[in-house]
Amino acid sequence: MTNINSEKLSSARFTEATDAFVEEFTASVLFDKRMAEQDIQGSIAHATMLCSIDILTTDECTAIIDGLTQIAAEIANGEFVWSIKQEDVHMNIEARLTDLIGIAGKKLHTGRSRNDQVATDIRLYLRSEIQQIGMQLRRLQAAIVNLAEQHVDTIMPGFTHLQVAQPITFGHHLMAWFEMLSRDHERLQDCLKRVNVMPLGAAALAGTSYPIDRHLTSELLGFSHPSANSLDSVSDRDFAIEFTAVASLIMMHLSRFSEELILWSSAQFDFIDMPDAFCTGSSIMPQKKNPDVPELVRGKSGRVTGHLIALLMLMKSQPLAYNKDNQEDKEPIFDTVDTLINCLRAYADMIPHIKAKKDMMYQSAKQGFATATDLADYLVRKGLPFRDAHEIVGLAVRLGIASKRDLSDLTIVEFQRFSPLISDDVYDILTLEGSVAARKHIGGTAPETVRKAIEHAKKILKI
Amino acid sequence: MTNINSEKLSSARFTEATDAFVEEFTASVLFDKRMAEQDIQGSIAHATMLCSIDILTTDECTAIIDGLTQIAAEIANGEFVWSIKQEDVHMNIEARLTDLIGIAGKKLHTGRSRNDQVATDIRLYLRSEIQQIGMQLRRLQAAIVNLAEQHVDTIMPGFTHLQVAQPITFGHHLMAWFEMLSRDHERLQDCLKRVNVMPLGAAALAGTSYPIDRHLTSELLGFSHPSANSLDSVSDRDFAIEFTAVASLIMMHLSRFSEELILWSSAQFDFIDMPDAFCTGSSIMPQKKNPDVPELVRGKSGRVTGHLIALLMLMKSQPLAYNKDNQEDKEPIFDTVDTLINCLRAYADMIPHIKAKKDMMYQSAKQGFATATDLADYLVRKGLPFRDAHEIVGLAVRLGIASKRDLSDLTIVEFQRFSPLISDDVYDILTLEGSVAARKHIGGTAPETVRKAIEHAKKILKI
Amino acid sequence: MTNINSEKLSSARFTEATDAFVEEFTASVLFDKRMAEQDIQGSIAHATMLCSIDILTTDECTAIIDGLTQIAAEIANGEFVWSIKQEDVHMNIEARLTDLIGIAGKKLHTGRSRNDQVATDIRLYLRSEIQQIGMQLRRLQAAIVNLAEQHVDTIMPGFTHLQVAQPITFGHHLMAWFEMLSRDHERLQDCLKRVNVMPLGAAALAGTSYPIDRHLTSELLGFSHPSANSLDSVSDRDFAIEFTAVASLIMMHLSRFSEELILWSSAQFDFIDMPDAFCTGSSIMPQKKNPDVPELVRGKSGRVTGHLIALLMLMKSQPLAYNKDNQEDKEPIFDTVDTLINCLRAYADMIPHIKAKKDMMYQSAKQGFATATDLADYLVRKGLPFRDAHEIVGLAVRLGIASKRDLSDLTIVEFQRFSPLISDDVYDILTLEGSVAARKHIGGTAPETVRKAIEHAKKILKI
Amino acid sequence: MTNINSEKLSSARFTEATDAFVEEFTASVLFDKRMAEQDIQGSIAHATMLCSIDILTTDECTAIIDGLTQIAAEIANGEFVWSIKQEDVHMNIEARLTDLIGIAGKKLHTGRSRNDQVATDIRLYLRSEIQQIGMQLRRLQAAIVNLAEQHVDTIMPGFTHLQVAQPITFGHHLMAWFEMLSRDHERLQDCLKRVNVMPLGAAALAGTSYPIDRHLTSELLGFSHPSANSLDSVSDRDFAIEFTAVASLIMMHLSRFSEELILWSSAQFDFIDMPDAFCTGSSIMPQKKNPDVPELVRGKSGRVTGHLIALLMLMKSQPLAYNKDNQEDKEPIFDTVDTLINCLRAYADMIPHIKAKKDMMYQSAKQGFATATDLADYLVRKGLPFRDAHEIVGLAVRLGIASKRDLSDLTIVEFQRFSPLISDDVYDILTLEGSVAARKHIGGTAPETVRKAIEHAKKILKI
Repeated sequence: MTNINSEKLSSARFTEATDAFVEEFTASVLFDKRMAEQDIQGSIAHATMLCSIDILTTDECTAIIDGLTQIAAEIANGEFVWSIKQEDVHMNIEARLTDLIGIAGKKLHTGRSRNDQVATDIRLYLRSEIQQIGMQLRRLQAAIVNLAEQHVDTIMPGFTHLQVAQPITFGHHLMAWFEMLSRDHERLQDCLKRVNVMPLGAAALAGTSYPIDRHLTSELLGFSHPSANSLDSVSDRDFAIEFTAVASLIMMHLSRFSEELILWSSAQFDFIDMPDAFCTGSSIMPQKKNPDVPELVRGKSGRVTGHLIALLMLMKSQPLAYNKDNQEDKEPIFDTVDTLINCLRAYADMIPHIKAKKDMMYQSAKQGFATATDLADYLVRKGLPFRDAHEIVGLAVRLGIASKRDLSDLTIVEFQRFSPLISDDVYDILTLEGSVAARKHIGGTAPETVRKAIEHAKKILKI
Repeated sequence: MTNINSEKLSSARFTEATDAFVEEFTASVLFDKRMAEQDIQGSIAHATMLCSIDILTTDECTAIIDGLTQIAAEIANGEFVWSIKQEDVHMNIEARLTDLIGIAGKKLHTGRSRNDQVATDIRLYLRSEIQQIGMQLRRLQAAIVNLAEQHVDTIMPGFTHLQVAQPITFGHHLMAWFEMLSRDHERLQDCLKRVNVMPLGAAALAGTSYPIDRHLTSELLGFSHPSANSLDSVSDRDFAIEFTAVASLIMMHLSRFSEELILWSSAQFDFIDMPDAFCTGSSIMPQKKNPDVPELVRGKSGRVTGHLIALLMLMKSQPLAYNKDNQEDKEPIFDTVDTLINCLRAYADMIPHIKAKKDMMYQSAKQGFATATDLADYLVRKGLPFRDAHEIVGLAVRLGIASKRDLSDLTIVEFQRFSPLISDDVYDILTLEGSVAARKHIGGTAPETVRKAIEHAKKILKI
Repeated sequence: MTNINSEKLSSARFTEATDAFVEEFTASVLFDKRMAEQDIQGSIAHATMLCSIDILTTDECTAIIDGLTQIAAEIANGEFVWSIKQEDVHMNIEARLTDLIGIAGKKLHTGRSRNDQVATDIRLYLRSEIQQIGMQLRRLQAAIVNLAEQHVDTIMPGFTHLQVAQPITFGHHLMAWFEMLSRDHERLQDCLKRVNVMPLGAAALAGTSYPIDRHLTSELLGFSHPSANSLDSVSDRDFAIEFTAVASLIMMHLSRFSEELILWSSAQFDFIDMPDAFCTGSSIMPQKKNPDVPELVRGKSGRVTGHLIALLMLMKSQPLAYNKDNQEDKEPIFDTVDTLINCLRAYADMIPHIKAKKDMMYQSAKQGFATATDLADYLVRKGLPFRDAHEIVGLAVRLGIASKRDLSDLTIVEFQRFSPLISDDVYDILTLEGSVAARKHIGGTAPETVRKAIEHAKKILKI
Repeated sequence: MTNINSEKLSSARFTEATDAFVEEFTASVLFDKRMAEQDIQGSIAHATMLCSIDILTTDECTAIIDGLTQIAAEIANGEFVWSIKQEDVHMNIEARLTDLIGIAGKKLHTGRSRNDQVATDIRLYLRSEIQQIGMQLRRLQAAIVNLAEQHVDTIMPGFTHLQVAQPITFGHHLMAWFEMLSRDHERLQDCLKRVNVMPLGAAALAGTSYPIDRHLTSELLGFSHPSANSLDSVSDRDFAIEFTAVASLIMMHLSRFSEELILWSSAQFDFIDMPDAFCTGSSIMPQKKNPDVPELVRGKSGRVTGHLIALLMLMKSQPLAYNKDNQEDKEPIFDTVDTLINCLRAYADMIPHIKAKKDMMYQSAKQGFATATDLADYLVRKGLPFRDAHEIVGLAVRLGIASKRDLSDLTIVEFQRFSPLISDDVYDILTLEGSVAARKHIGGTAPETVRKAIEHAKKILKI
């Protein structure tokens, strides 16, 4: 999170004069230049609108658009010279435009101010990044669904309290991850609705005395509509907070996936084999593979929540309208975007290469007496009262523990010593396969249900 | 936030035996009893469904429903005896049910577990509270719109950096608050979509081997649909986090309103008179009125953000499926609900009684040379280049400062000394009224535009 | 965190009149009555001081102290009637005092205000609770040291990245926990220095015109000294933030211990047996023990960090001196105190009953080729360059994997095929015992070093 | 907070191969190179120690130190080529060292691992930065004390609830700021004690089998002592959390100072004139000065609290010992250091140039009936019961309001109509000067007391 700006500031911290220090301290160009593309995009739309209401002549408008187009190219080529003296991305571009096309460059600023301009830029930027994030999220979901499809029948222990509780399928477990990300995708779209509103035209805070056509600008920029109140437009940073809240939830989910991958790739669980590219090994301990990527992603969840708090605290009790405090909104947004895109990409790249160790999963489920609940249900269905059923299951499990056998390995004679209600059909539900197959209602772990869930997911993902 | 539970725990902390201490430490009934109504509602639907698939007989079902109805009445009357021994709201009610109707009471638990039961209860609870919150939010919006309507023409200074920038109307400022709350209402509805999904039927984590009809239960409880994955259903607390994030934004908005009310009711600003019921006075300083309610609301914004963090951290890196950690989700939700409803109600009650001191607002706007921008725009419209226009305005303001007059008080002769382009029509835009009237595009501060915004708001609010 | 106050508020929320609602909304007595003892303690000292400077007569002072003593008894007996009308703990007690002793009761408030009074109460309260917390912390440290002492020689795998890295002793691992808590204890003492400063005498914000003797009051109350600036005294809530920061670190540590206990008691690790009283079992799965207490403690870490944020956000950008916002400081402090004391107590009670499964720990260490690093060090000591040493170890481990044997089970002939430098003494360092014994420098895992660390710890703890 | 790393990652995000992406995603060199100086410092001490125990020959040691010294120079000159392939600062420097001096370079790593190395580097780095922060903090305190000294007699209103409460002196108000920063300085020193402990020698997690002399290394590096437990040494990030907690408190204080400066420089308060270099003006509104620096500093308080949360969440429930998550500790520390140093410097540079507008402050205090409390105290001292005194003061203030005069402007005849106890000496305490002079006990606002506080402060600061 350390940026060039701060680095410079700190290296220079004891030598420079106060004025130069303050200039650098208050400047934002070293980070907000990241929105240069959006700044130019917004300016072209603004110029076009000004021309449509005859504030700019066609010639002026053309000159401005040509100049901005050239500047965009200079920036893309790395030829543009950013200046801290010019404070921010807007002034840097405006100054260069005036260099290029003369005083007409200044006219571009008619009917707007930096307050509405920066609010427009950051929304354009975030809109575009939300689309990238959504894409990576969908890629990850697709990877999960594809892996789940391979493991519709792969039995593993389902845990509560990290204790083996009931057998489930690995496909079912993966589809739980899919569901979490589906909610994330929904939230992201809901957030986008509120990002995609145009503040431009609010000017400093009150609107402008020029007869601007905000509907036109909004349309040119692809916004859904212009904002409804100028004071609110320059003061509002809700969209940034909502975005980081959505991002915090995504990262929280990834931290949970990570926790499981790390557990599963420990020697004690040994449920999966992680792809080499996402781990570090050791030349002297070739059996050891550190799950670096999941660990790093888990660690990054705090970072994004930190940004959420930073933004909530930033806005707390600020009077309207624009205050300089708001300049602090950008770095948390940028770092959240980067973190999110990189973590999602890393996961989307990694998931397809995870190998399930089916035997280990199966054995682990089998050793946990994971079908004890099924036996209880069986007895209840045969008419036994709950309490009696539970007591009998307890006795059976104790025999299993004592003789180191799973319930499905006890003989029918042994069972009937506990209850005459138990007959041969008990083995249908005592096996791991029988147990999972029985949970076939919507949401259950039965292979046939999971298969349907996967089909449904594929339709949503269009894969 | 201290609850009865903790109080008891701490008072008893050095005397009781370990077992009793741990029992109390792990019990949740002292706070989760708040969901008793929802627990009973869920159980009645579950029983009805079990009856429909012949797991319960009609007689059993009737007995269960009658028993639960009686328990609901006992709770409402304060006659129900809650027991820490019974650990949580679910076990307390189940134990009482078995007291009342015998072993059939135990059958109610067929095909469900406390893991899906508690997830259902909290969603039912939150759904209901979100409706109350939405209602208070709408009440507050209506109060704001009504006040704004009285002040469509009331001129006040618009601030940036807490410096007078341009004249605006008080009605316009209030409508900025309305916009903030409109986004909050939208977010609340979006959140509700994800709250209103039914986890019941997920059982412990894998679903159940009984042929339950989750669509029926979902319909009976008014959920939009059953959840899609059983593991996810018992592990998911996204809805709680999303809700507290939405709540944090609402509280952040209220903290901004509070900051402004506090500023405005200071002797230095003196823009408004706060209603007595929401302040405390001083017997010896009758002119002093402490804006207690806004201060308290501002203070409470941190509390709700604290709950958001608590929940994000709670879920961080938890492996699936249910872990005891999740018991910690309830108190932050409950306190967020209470804080939100009380703060919104306090504001909705308070706003209608706020008196604007129009003269003070007007004078404050007038002393700030708030129409300097208008003069610059005027000159530009007359054909002067920007730089020259700015220079002339600077000279005019300096003359105003030196002679302690507003721009609109300078004579035409004085103006023409700065630029011959200035003629009598300059006074149309130099007055505060002229300045605000000119900002009539959508989102602007012009009374006619604000009037339209108010009409639109009233349609949304149906008032 | 839901308190009686909020419960009442919400239950009543739609029926009561605005005035009653606001009265309850702004009242603090339902939570601040918890400081009644400290309030009385502070008042007695204040009265004594006022008497010493002849503001109170001896008779008045005696009457006040007798009255307060009676009130303290009434509160202790549960006979005291708290009234929301009287707003807070201070006014409730003052009103009762005036009931009991007449107008002299009012004189007690000479030379102080509620602003400095509440700041004094909360510091007295926190000072006392910090001592309790420190005591529980020391109890927990003692429990850890005692358990460590039993396991100075118990070998287990040391993990990095949750992968087996090197053998360590369980005693050494436990002593890492001891170190974490030692820092916590230090921080708590450092925090106490800043808590134990007396604000009384700052009055509303400026001090008082009475010739009060703040040194005397400070001495009577056991504060280290009176505060140095009256404005700061009534505005400062640093001590609350610092305390919750210290508490957040303690809870973070407990969450780490919990994570390990949960892992270790899973069937996959199976390193420990958790005491029954701290778990819940299952009647039908007697082998299953849910580690409820560690899970709950892990979950509570977010709660305390939430309070820290609430307080930081509460104070953010508040102008001096006292604002009503500050009333929000108490509930987070109270809940932090309760959470901390209960979690520490639960841990201190639980640790002595944890049983290490030495065989499982040993086997797990043995299967991980945990002494590969020792072999590399051995070869380097024999003069081999690093790279060559690493290559040889890699070959040896591969042979171990292929033949399912630990390094210590390979024959000398096999080793010498890889390098002639290896001789019989290699087995001294290849065994787990040899490996840990070699790490005997300060801080290392060798039993003799751990034994010294334990001795040192016992001296600190005086056990 | 966006760093070069992320920028590169995101720009490249859709083109590069997975391996290159993961390499960059997991690399830390782009931010941890900031600790290069400390890494070299640590390595030189380690080499010296290894030589003292004959693991390195004197020649090897000399070669290593020479090589490292050259590398330090290359880095300082900007000639060093950092490589993402080499992952982190440690490997980059080690690789270069091996380039320079051959295989002996590899030997440097004997008896340590990157786990203890990075923990050492970050502590060395933080120790050094804490000293810089402490220095800037002291500079700011000195600036405050100097300004306070000029305003020992400058009267201003003291506020509670942002309502004028009692007169105070500006010097007294400033000394409240001094007190806040004094606590910050204390906390910083307490934190430093726990930062300044040496983890080196803990190796990967268990210590090393080489007979290292940790006391020697500790002494060479100026640490107070080596850490006591190797597992704890590589897992512990408490110091980072404690540091960001201390930093959050400092920033919270600066945000409070900022809030006041912003208020005071508004046209409505108009208490101070902010120095031009720390504001932005407007060419067309020369009277307008935006207090940019205070606003920006206020905004940055959230940022640092965000880092605190990031770190607490990072460590939450991590099992011992080192996990890759911990790599995420650095960026929050770096950015906290930069933010803190820059904000403190900006304030230390700015404070000396703040001009108090004494007349405005005085008038504002005078209009607030700020001595009403003094009148009540006067009457009580004359023997009137409290209630009667309060009633009389209320009547007098009402007369003042009605006749637009301060209490000190009422005539003795008017006063005596309210109470015959009032005589001419009342004016001594009714004037603002009399009121403040009377509050002369320790901590009070009387000029003589403030003067003593300043003298005491100067001794502490040695100015």
